[in-house]
Amino acid sequence: MSEQQHIVSSYDTDLETIQAMIMKMGGLTEAAILQAANSLETRDEELAEKVRKNDAAIDELEEQINEECARVLALRQPIARDLRTVLTVMKISANLERVGDYAKNLAKRTSVLVQMPPIDGSSGAIRRMAKTVETMLKDVLDAYIQRDAELAEDVRLRDQEVDQMYNALFREFLTFMMEDPRNITACMHLHFIAKNIERMGDHVTSIAEQVIYLVTGEMPDEGRPKRDRTSIETHGNE
Amino acid sequence: MSEQQHIVSSYDTDLETIQAMIMKMGGLTEAAILQAANSLETRDEELAEKVRKNDAAIDELEEQINEECARVLALRQPIARDLRTVLTVMKISANLERVGDYAKNLAKRTSVLVQMPPIDGSSGAIRRMAKTVETMLKDVLDAYIQRDAELAEDVRLRDQEVDQMYNALFREFLTFMMEDPRNITACMHLHFIAKNIERMGDHVTSIAEQVIYLVTGEMPDEGRPKRDRTSIETHGNE
Repeated sequence: MSEQQHIVSSYDTDLETIQAMIMKMGGLTEAAILQAANSLETRDEELAEKVRKNDAAIDELEEQINEECARVLALRQPIARDLRTVLTVMKISANLERVGDYAKNLAKRTSVLVQMPPIDGSSGAIRRMAKTVETMLKDVLDAYIQRDAELAEDVRLRDQEVDQMYNALFREFLTFMMEDPRNITACMHLHFIAKNIERMGDHVTSIAEQVIYLVTGEMPDEGRPKRDRTSIETHGNE
Repeated sequence: MSEQQHIVSSYDTDLETIQAMIMKMGGLTEAAILQAANSLETRDEELAEKVRKNDAAIDELEEQINEECARVLALRQPIARDLRTVLTVMKISANLERVGDYAKNLAKRTSVLVQMPPIDGSSGAIRRMAKTVETMLKDVLDAYIQRDAELAEDVRLRDQEVDQMYNALFREFLTFMMEDPRNITACMHLHFIAKNIERMGDHVTSIAEQVIYLVTGEMPDEGRPKRDRTSIETHGNE
């Protein structure tokens, strides 16, 4: 009996360790999003370079979390809800890693864009979009820690705002390009950045769904707000 | 002893079941890539619609594989190499699901692009790029089944070809847009398609890395050919 208790409490300690790693990874990813967007707005190449370098720490945390989860699976052989927790953690860290990658990519494009004339108002709009995603990420990590399915559902729904911001920017970039072909290259890069932030939002949504699954045992699949509309609409301005 | 054998052989049966599901998922994903690219080249909206519908079957297989893996982890509690196999399978199926999503997105854009004048030569180039990725996917699934790390490494290196094709198309689309602003909207969509196929290649590469890890116990991380160069280069034509 005391042997059993010992095993259970070690398992809890393992989970807490992993949870702490996820929170650290989340914090680094949040910072990467904001710093990448700021580097674009202030045309700060040094900050962009920092974001690119810092991504290695996020990648390393993902690897550590994977190893730790594999160790827990092998040693503790959790079942039912405990197993679900470990598998959820692995998915959350995979999503965070992708968000970090997108932030790094944004920072890389900053270094290209500073060499071109700025496009009116675009970097402010992108910073606001990034801020929205960063707040969603912060909230979904809170939802995970507090096992709060309602907050996770709220985050999931807020992804629509990000999609709307993206769709508005898509139209704006098309207009800028048509007005002046010299804007085309910069707008292509800015458009990619907007698209990548929209994808960050999808990954945060995916984390929200994992949290809902963890808490309720069921994946939300109905009424999922769908996303980038540019693939199914023709846009004006022609 | 016979109890032990029984457990081992059930475990093998479980793995074979999961392996069969992965191969089926891989086959559907390969078909989706080719059909989506063909629908674009032949401007075949009906085929595009079929690809969009068929994606549900790929998503469903991923869910089944996840459930089956969770069941195996809970019931068989595999360790060491067997545990690695189950975790690898979950990652492979997640990658296949993303590739399927990109194919679906390509098919959606086909429906938009048929409403616009075609851009010279672009859909042929995209079809060739898609074919390259599809062949890589076929080979990496063979590498997985045969536990062939060398073949997986070969696939991983071939991703460079896809990146080169993407970079060439990126430049071409910029040129088309600058030549005639009426090409801008179509080129934006085509560019997305090219980028999404390039991302499919990244996911196939990621599967190749999982296979290498499964066979050798080590992730390849050095000399990984890096990818979309457009984020770190300025392009001509300005």
